[in-house]
Amino acid sequence: MALTINNHPERLLPVDPNIRPVALRLYQEVRDLPIISPHGHTDPSWFAENQNFTNPHDLLVTPDHYLIRMLYSQGVRLAELGIKAKGIGRPTEPVNDSRSAWRLFAKNYFLFRGTPSGIWLNQIFTDVFNQSEVLTEVTADKYFDSISEQLQQEEFRPRQIFDRFNIEFLATTESAVDSLKYHKILRDSDWNGRVVTTYRPDSVIDPEHARFTDSLALFGEITGENTYSWQGYLQAHRNRRADFIAMGATSTDHGHATARTANLSNIECEKLFSRVVSGQLAPGDAELFRAQMLTEMARMSLDDKLVMQIHPGSFRNHNTWLFEQYGGDKGADIPQPIEFSSALKPLLDCFGNNSELSIILFTLDETNYARELAPLAGHYPCLRLGPAWWFNDSPEGILRFREQTTETAGFYNTVGFNDDTRALLSIPARHDMSRRIDCSYLARLVGEHRLTEDDALQVAKDLTYNLPKKAYRIEDND
Amino acid sequence: MALTINNHPERLLPVDPNIRPVALRLYQEVRDLPIISPHGHTDPSWFAENQNFTNPHDLLVTPDHYLIRMLYSQGVRLAELGIKAKGIGRPTEPVNDSRSAWRLFAKNYFLFRGTPSGIWLNQIFTDVFNQSEVLTEVTADKYFDSISEQLQQEEFRPRQIFDRFNIEFLATTESAVDSLKYHKILRDSDWNGRVVTTYRPDSVIDPEHARFTDSLALFGEITGENTYSWQGYLQAHRNRRADFIAMGATSTDHGHATARTANLSNIECEKLFSRVVSGQLAPGDAELFRAQMLTEMARMSLDDKLVMQIHPGSFRNHNTWLFEQYGGDKGADIPQPIEFSSALKPLLDCFGNNSELSIILFTLDETNYARELAPLAGHYPCLRLGPAWWFNDSPEGILRFREQTTETAGFYNTVGFNDDTRALLSIPARHDMSRRIDCSYLARLVGEHRLTEDDALQVAKDLTYNLPKKAYRIEDND
Amino acid sequence: MALTINNHPERLLPVDPNIRPVALRLYQEVRDLPIISPHGHTDPSWFAENQNFTNPHDLLVTPDHYLIRMLYSQGVRLAELGIKAKGIGRPTEPVNDSRSAWRLFAKNYFLFRGTPSGIWLNQIFTDVFNQSEVLTEVTADKYFDSISEQLQQEEFRPRQIFDRFNIEFLATTESAVDSLKYHKILRDSDWNGRVVTTYRPDSVIDPEHARFTDSLALFGEITGENTYSWQGYLQAHRNRRADFIAMGATSTDHGHATARTANLSNIECEKLFSRVVSGQLAPGDAELFRAQMLTEMARMSLDDKLVMQIHPGSFRNHNTWLFEQYGGDKGADIPQPIEFSSALKPLLDCFGNNSELSIILFTLDETNYARELAPLAGHYPCLRLGPAWWFNDSPEGILRFREQTTETAGFYNTVGFNDDTRALLSIPARHDMSRRIDCSYLARLVGEHRLTEDDALQVAKDLTYNLPKKAYRIEDND
Repeated sequence: MALTINNHPERLLPVDPNIRPVALRLYQEVRDLPIISPHGHTDPSWFAENQNFTNPHDLLVTPDHYLIRMLYSQGVRLAELGIKAKGIGRPTEPVNDSRSAWRLFAKNYFLFRGTPSGIWLNQIFTDVFNQSEVLTEVTADKYFDSISEQLQQEEFRPRQIFDRFNIEFLATTESAVDSLKYHKILRDSDWNGRVVTTYRPDSVIDPEHARFTDSLALFGEITGENTYSWQGYLQAHRNRRADFIAMGATSTDHGHATARTANLSNIECEKLFSRVVSGQLAPGDAELFRAQMLTEMARMSLDDKLVMQIHPGSFRNHNTWLFEQYGGDKGADIPQPIEFSSALKPLLDCFGNNSELSIILFTLDETNYARELAPLAGHYPCLRLGPAWWFNDSPEGILRFREQTTETAGFYNTVGFNDDTRALLSIPARHDMSRRIDCSYLARLVGEHRLTEDDALQVAKDLTYNLPKKAYRIEDND
Repeated sequence: MALTINNHPERLLPVDPNIRPVALRLYQEVRDLPIISPHGHTDPSWFAENQNFTNPHDLLVTPDHYLIRMLYSQGVRLAELGIKAKGIGRPTEPVNDSRSAWRLFAKNYFLFRGTPSGIWLNQIFTDVFNQSEVLTEVTADKYFDSISEQLQQEEFRPRQIFDRFNIEFLATTESAVDSLKYHKILRDSDWNGRVVTTYRPDSVIDPEHARFTDSLALFGEITGENTYSWQGYLQAHRNRRADFIAMGATSTDHGHATARTANLSNIECEKLFSRVVSGQLAPGDAELFRAQMLTEMARMSLDDKLVMQIHPGSFRNHNTWLFEQYGGDKGADIPQPIEFSSALKPLLDCFGNNSELSIILFTLDETNYARELAPLAGHYPCLRLGPAWWFNDSPEGILRFREQTTETAGFYNTVGFNDDTRALLSIPARHDMSRRIDCSYLARLVGEHRLTEDDALQVAKDLTYNLPKKAYRIEDND
Repeated sequence: MALTINNHPERLLPVDPNIRPVALRLYQEVRDLPIISPHGHTDPSWFAENQNFTNPHDLLVTPDHYLIRMLYSQGVRLAELGIKAKGIGRPTEPVNDSRSAWRLFAKNYFLFRGTPSGIWLNQIFTDVFNQSEVLTEVTADKYFDSISEQLQQEEFRPRQIFDRFNIEFLATTESAVDSLKYHKILRDSDWNGRVVTTYRPDSVIDPEHARFTDSLALFGEITGENTYSWQGYLQAHRNRRADFIAMGATSTDHGHATARTANLSNIECEKLFSRVVSGQLAPGDAELFRAQMLTEMARMSLDDKLVMQIHPGSFRNHNTWLFEQYGGDKGADIPQPIEFSSALKPLLDCFGNNSELSIILFTLDETNYARELAPLAGHYPCLRLGPAWWFNDSPEGILRFREQTTETAGFYNTVGFNDDTRALLSIPARHDMSRRIDCSYLARLVGEHRLTEDDALQVAKDLTYNLPKKAYRIEDND
């Protein structure tokens, strides 16, 4: 007999008999609030074209590097997961079809015990696809058939899913050289769903980016500016930021290796930029250019009011062979230690006291939380703390974020939750997890008489709904 | 109807029904023990002159950078808080009077939800000033009037407050060039309150200190030594340490950017010092001089028995504009990552095995607790661990300190609590929080059968009273 | 009346009335499973010669640097503990005999309140030596006499203890130049106990090791290779690895200061090695050579299938004076901050995608857990995470390990427990503590509906027994 999926209505809430009821009361008040998703990586073509998805493997596994990563770590090869290599001298092993790959995923589903992915998937299986048996090798085909069939129905088309999920606002992320064509379709459609873009200029800012040279050329074509001169290059950014704002963007996003910023004179900038575009980089130039560009982006944000997000600390594509064969986003990005106190100072010396500017900081290095991030955000008017991110977007990770930031930065220098996902189906499950953990943390404060339940309820609503709207400057939709 | 302040008698104790009673029993045994406050920043003139305070804003808000910091981070300007700028080209906006500033503080009081400041203030409001309604915009004036009136009474004069708070020992902190005049008044007075000084020579040790040049000259004047020669400079320290000891000091304090120490030959010291006094510093010289001076201070401590405190890791006055306009201690000091294992080795190679020496280590970088500090203090006879400090002097912060140090360093290599505050009224609230959290930690160990309740009670008393007296070499007052 | 030892059967389990019963059910299922001890430092001569131990001090205190460390930190001198100095100009104070030293240990036993050593010792006293009174100055002699007498009995000989402890597999650690004579005796004996060796080549790999020069010469003698040529040196490693495999070794172990690896060309290796053997090291050469040798060891592991363990991050013999007088392993090794993302990349670029290779990573810097180690082990097929190590092998430390690694790496990229001890009697107590804490963690996940109890039970058995056997490639013994 197959086992029943563990998706208890009180899951993730504290066990203590004096805290769980408080947590549950708080959670019940925020559970059904609309989803604000101001930072993520879903594909805008889904909503623009509104085509049905095909099968659970292509929908749930292939695009989710959290899943690929774990399977790969245990010796499952990417070809076995149905993923094709593209490099020279690539592996010649046969590539599984979706059903065979799904069976392999099902067989290894026990690897996700104790992980957030396991909890999200169980919630998707039960709440979205009405499954009740645990996914195993035995139930794999039943799952594949049932979900594939459901996905063909009208109500499982992307816009219908979006509406059913009660998403009020969803931001995708596009490169500075993206055509934004899907966002144009969305803007011109009669669908009411609010799907906007985010300005992510890494490929034209990072001289070490694999596509930097091509992107810089394209950046000039798209904007009609001379992107090989410092002033033209800056103007191209201004133009494109305006294009993105026209497609609803309220923020920019910057995924640098470190949080370093710089404040060079205009002459130094011109010289540095000429080395960058000529490819004659001195050691440290690439890092310095990225650093200076964060300050330039902040300066532009003061003009056009885009909120700035800094997502530093990932060693991208750490696995060289895998990147060359299979490309990025296969679960091979590894965090590294970073610091913020010295790194941000040049930018803060320029604009730190300006409360018109809004910069949201993220980290993959949790040691930053109590040591630097909470003190920085608890002082500078322009700084806010983004939520627990990526590897830390998990029950323990979200709890550590609150425990390590609240006492210094309070709740009101944080910005609510980001799902940051390319896995569309997981969005409600991720927001639900965050709401449950925030309510659990608040309920403990209530139980320890550190907060009244009335205050906790207000904070829970603010963290879920009001703060993300305010932090990302999202206007009411009416 | 105004809400009632949340100041529950069992606040901060664990919720678990099997742990709270144990925690409460432990807490009740230490709650009323006298306060030992061996490290802090209250103003000795308060006790010397014993003048009444004026109003709640000037007493509670203006001197407390924990409060200013949070308000500033949310866009409240310092002029709105009644704080005057003094820099060139300073903001010309009107500066609020105390009542208006207090109203603004009251309006933003919700920002302190979940913070230790919120808990301390609520305890001050109820226990010291007998308020019962939550501070809000609505109750702001009532608070202002009531507290202002009480502050004019005899029993609210500083010495009377000190006595009422059951403080047995209070150390202030004075610069090496301080006249100690208030401490002389205290020494010669007939008041029994024990208020002593602490030797803090940063301004004559740190070549990068804003007042270094002036302080070094004054240091020579006060001591009658030639503070521009290495030997005279060292002798000036010895003289002043003796002056401080005469005013009751039992310890020194060193607020360096890092924990680095050095062990140079005498000739190297002479050369380094001549570069320091001539202002001809090579890169790294300032850091090296601070490092060498920690070793010199340790050497002097072996002679005069002053306990040495090292408080490293703060990037002081991180906000350049704010410092230039408003000066220090406005909530703009930001922690930075530091390490101890390599940094302390030169000093420890000299004196590490001497149990006559006592060095108390603090950090703002909690990653040091389990990794370096507990192992160091759990080995070297001269080392002890100071309590969770500054940003970490909070319920979660104190708990993390115990959880991350006890298993390696035990309880007896720690030194009890320091309030480290310039906010006089908060002293009992801060000690009370620490006692509650230590008892909570101990109660969990009892509940998990890791410690008997008898042992826990002995440890609770030691942490509260016996260890700070022993660690700071405080003699019984009789 | 003497107090009774606190050794409650439900010790270390969570207090919560809804979690403890789950934890207890899980624990009862794994409590009596055989002990797999794949990494430790017991002395193989004990089992080879099977001589009785003499008294509790020489058995329990003298070889245990966890105990020496704490006593020393509180001013107890090593001579007082019965430990002789051997350096030049050594202390001339009288050295205590074992009974006097034991009395001093007993008098200071309160220092171990709240430490894992205290819990292990209490369990040894009750379960192995049938004591019931707390060890104090008063009971010291009674303990000494009772334990000394028991130690003379047949059932307290090392092999009998081993069998009674239900140890299925025990690995000791020997240097690359060890004769392995005790392991040969064990191999040739008729005793069934499985005691194997581990290849630890630090003294012939680390040019800064105190015995490097001598060891390198001996390495050549033992292997018959020219260990002053790069190829001969590598061949000597291959030979000795084969010798160790013949004595049952399934793994190697590497205790470098950092996790740095390198991937030099053969010509660069030859040049570096010639600088190493000539003693003409350029700055950074020693570190680079250690780094390259980790990659060489990985390459050899692909051939001979030895599992590789990397134990970085300890600043060995931090206390120079103590090391010179008393030698190593006296509690004076201090952790330091390290990183893995960049450090391991050269090795991973060579072999990271090969699931035939197995590298188990350890750290003393807990900041690595969530930031780098779980992401690395959650991606690379060759990587696994060793358990909480050394200072972190404690109730809070083990719990932090699970809380900070499980959500990203899952359970199946970890390898169960290592006791890593030279304290034979503590082995069951250490494994018991780990089992209790793992079950406590799992029980909380069950209580929060993050895992079913069926799954938790399977995981508990895997962590206790199946994963260490699999990770260390231990074949069934039949």
